[in-house]
Amino acid sequence: SKSNEPPAAPPVVHYYMNNLTTSRDPVGNRETVLILTPLARFYQEYWDNLVKLNYPHELISLGFIIPKTKEGNAAYTALQAQVTKTQGGPKTKRFASVTILRQDTESPLQTQSEAERHKMENQKARRAAMAKARNSLLFTTLGPSTSWVLWMDSDIVEYPETLIQDLASYDVPIIAPNCFQRYYDDNKKTMDIRPYDFNNWIDSPVAKELAAKMGKDDILLEGYDKMPTYRSLMAMMYDASADPRLKVKLDGVGGATLLVKADVHRDGAMFPPFAFYHLIETEGFAKMAKRLNWESFGLPNYLVYHYNE
Amino acid sequence: SKSNEPPAAPPVVHYYMNNLTTSRDPVGNRETVLILTPLARFYQEYWDNLVKLNYPHELISLGFIIPKTKEGNAAYTALQAQVTKTQGGPKTKRFASVTILRQDTESPLQTQSEAERHKMENQKARRAAMAKARNSLLFTTLGPSTSWVLWMDSDIVEYPETLIQDLASYDVPIIAPNCFQRYYDDNKKTMDIRPYDFNNWIDSPVAKELAAKMGKDDILLEGYDKMPTYRSLMAMMYDASADPRLKVKLDGVGGATLLVKADVHRDGAMFPPFAFYHLIETEGFAKMAKRLNWESFGLPNYLVYHYNE
Ligand SMILES: Nc1nc2c(ncn2[C@@H]2O[C@H](COP(=O)(O)OP(=O)(O)O)[C@@H](O)[C@H]2O)c(=O)[nH]1
Ligand SMILES: Nc1nc2c(ncn2[C@@H]2O[C@H](COP(=O)(O)OP(=O)(O)O)[C@@H](O)[C@H]2O)c(=O)[nH]1
Ligand SMILES: [Mn+2]
Ligand SMILES: [Mn+2]
Repeated sequence: SKSNEPPAAPPVVHYYMNNLTTSRDPVGNRETVLILTPLARFYQEYWDNLVKLNYPHELISLGFIIPKTKEGNAAYTALQAQVTKTQGGPKTKRFASVTILRQDTESPLQTQSEAERHKMENQKARRAAMAKARNSLLFTTLGPSTSWVLWMDSDIVEYPETLIQDLASYDVPIIAPNCFQRYYDDNKKTMDIRPYDFNNWIDSPVAKELAAKMGKDDILLEGYDKMPTYRSLMAMMYDASADPRLKVKLDGVGGATLLVKADVHRDGAMFPPFAFYHLIETEGFAKMAKRLNWESFGLPNYLVYHYNE
Repeated sequence: SKSNEPPAAPPVVHYYMNNLTTSRDPVGNRETVLILTPLARFYQEYWDNLVKLNYPHELISLGFIIPKTKEGNAAYTALQAQVTKTQGGPKTKRFASVTILRQDTESPLQTQSEAERHKMENQKARRAAMAKARNSLLFTTLGPSTSWVLWMDSDIVEYPETLIQDLASYDVPIIAPNCFQRYYDDNKKTMDIRPYDFNNWIDSPVAKELAAKMGKDDILLEGYDKMPTYRSLMAMMYDASADPRLKVKLDGVGGATLLVKADVHRDGAMFPPFAFYHLIETEGFAKMAKRLNWESFGLPNYLVYHYNE
């Protein structure tokens, strides 16, 4: 600009929060979606599915948080290549903005094999670290015009391209599809599917009793034989022959794929990195949201697929 | 721009979180400060003091959240006039950016006289609403390059222009000056000062016992004769003749003036709008920060002044 032009005044932005809708018709109402991914490993299918989403890309912003590990470095390089390609490609495929955060803290667990990260004794430290990563990403990227936050893990490699519209159509504060995994069944000699994410559940009296007897910093974990909770797991409710739109109320949720109205987070719902009612991370989030009068729901018969190592 | 230029690609921003410092020399390290104010009433002195801050204004962003009330409308109009004046005035006085959020929810209490808002039976609903307002403001405005968050109530009308540097020089996660009030002493026939904010305190065994016997959604309140807690109140520790740099560890903090390292919030520390260890809002925030291993401190002999109605 010319040096004798009057200098532009810095930005002042006014946001009327009641103009920001989160409705069952998010495309019609031009509602913006922030897709957030804690990313330790990059999968090409993950990116390809983001690009294939048929929600208007100019309404989608992406946010990533990547750990300071060797694995994180590799994921960062792979992500950057795809971001550059997509954001420099056809206009209709470009996302509104992309924010990439590199963490400054070491991960408590360097090995990240499926077996290692699911060991019960590793879960508390690991999930506390994950909770902090999710909070950092959330607090840093949520903006005044965000209507929805879609949490999407980097190893979710298959879902319908109408995912955002499908989940938003229920018009509920928090909603999780059912996270499954494809695998080769050695007996049947064919590919099959099985439940993967056990964090979507309805609470049980047994779990409540277990919690009541615990030390105040202890946490309940789901999916471990050593600690049977008799919660009703959404992973076990899948029925291919039942109503595909079946919706159930949940008390705990996973973060693998989760659509949240941004106002739930704005009220203060975050991912507790400490025992919160004996729950942590995404499961603690559902509980905290409930304390703020926001309900969680799940779709037992709407599947998304987790990568199989 | 010319129509035959290649269209610019949407922004991709990379943030290395370890490059973002929060140090005892924030000016030297060019650290950005986000000043956040829940604003129901506008005071000219409040604005004048912001403008007088000698921290580089290009490193300061401002964020406001204003209730949807008649009082809020008046505050909004008054704020806008000052923002327009300052942001259009001398370059060195302009702030980096200003974000103004208008709330979409009704305030639980429409009357806002000092007497009315301090009534014990009004405190829980009022402070829950304040907590949600603070969370909305925080989640919406905290950005990837924010180093510090300075919480500043709109009725804080007097403090040194070196406030930010002074508080940051202690290099602690959370720090509160002592919030006093000027008043006319009818007996002495002269102006004097008295404590105003009782939310900065060190916990006591009595308070812990009271909490242990409470219902799970009940909260402890400070500064009410009906509920003596015997906590050590920073408001009562002021000593004009003692070390002005005296620093004490706190268990509860107020939000009237409070400097917080942005990473404390990024880890997930927010203002609980529900009973959290029988604490709520800013006092609950200090407890939550502690659960995340961040300590709170106070400066008994460093005064800021609250407006006197
Ligand atoms: N930022 C960050 N992301 C991580 C870390 N560990 C795992 N992730 C990512 O967080 C999500 C969930 O982790 P994952 O290991 O797949 O969990 P699991 O499938 O429940 O065992 C995935 O998107 C990972 O790529 C970490 O230490 N930091
Ligand atoms: N956004 C918003 N701000 C509020 C509301 N009520 C008060 N405030 C502001 O929040 C801060 C603290 O409130 P105040 O009534 O002064 O609290 P007190 O001095 O502790 O009694 C001040 O900056 C007020 O202007 C509200 O309902 N919404
Ligand atoms: Mn996974
Ligand atoms: Mn006040």
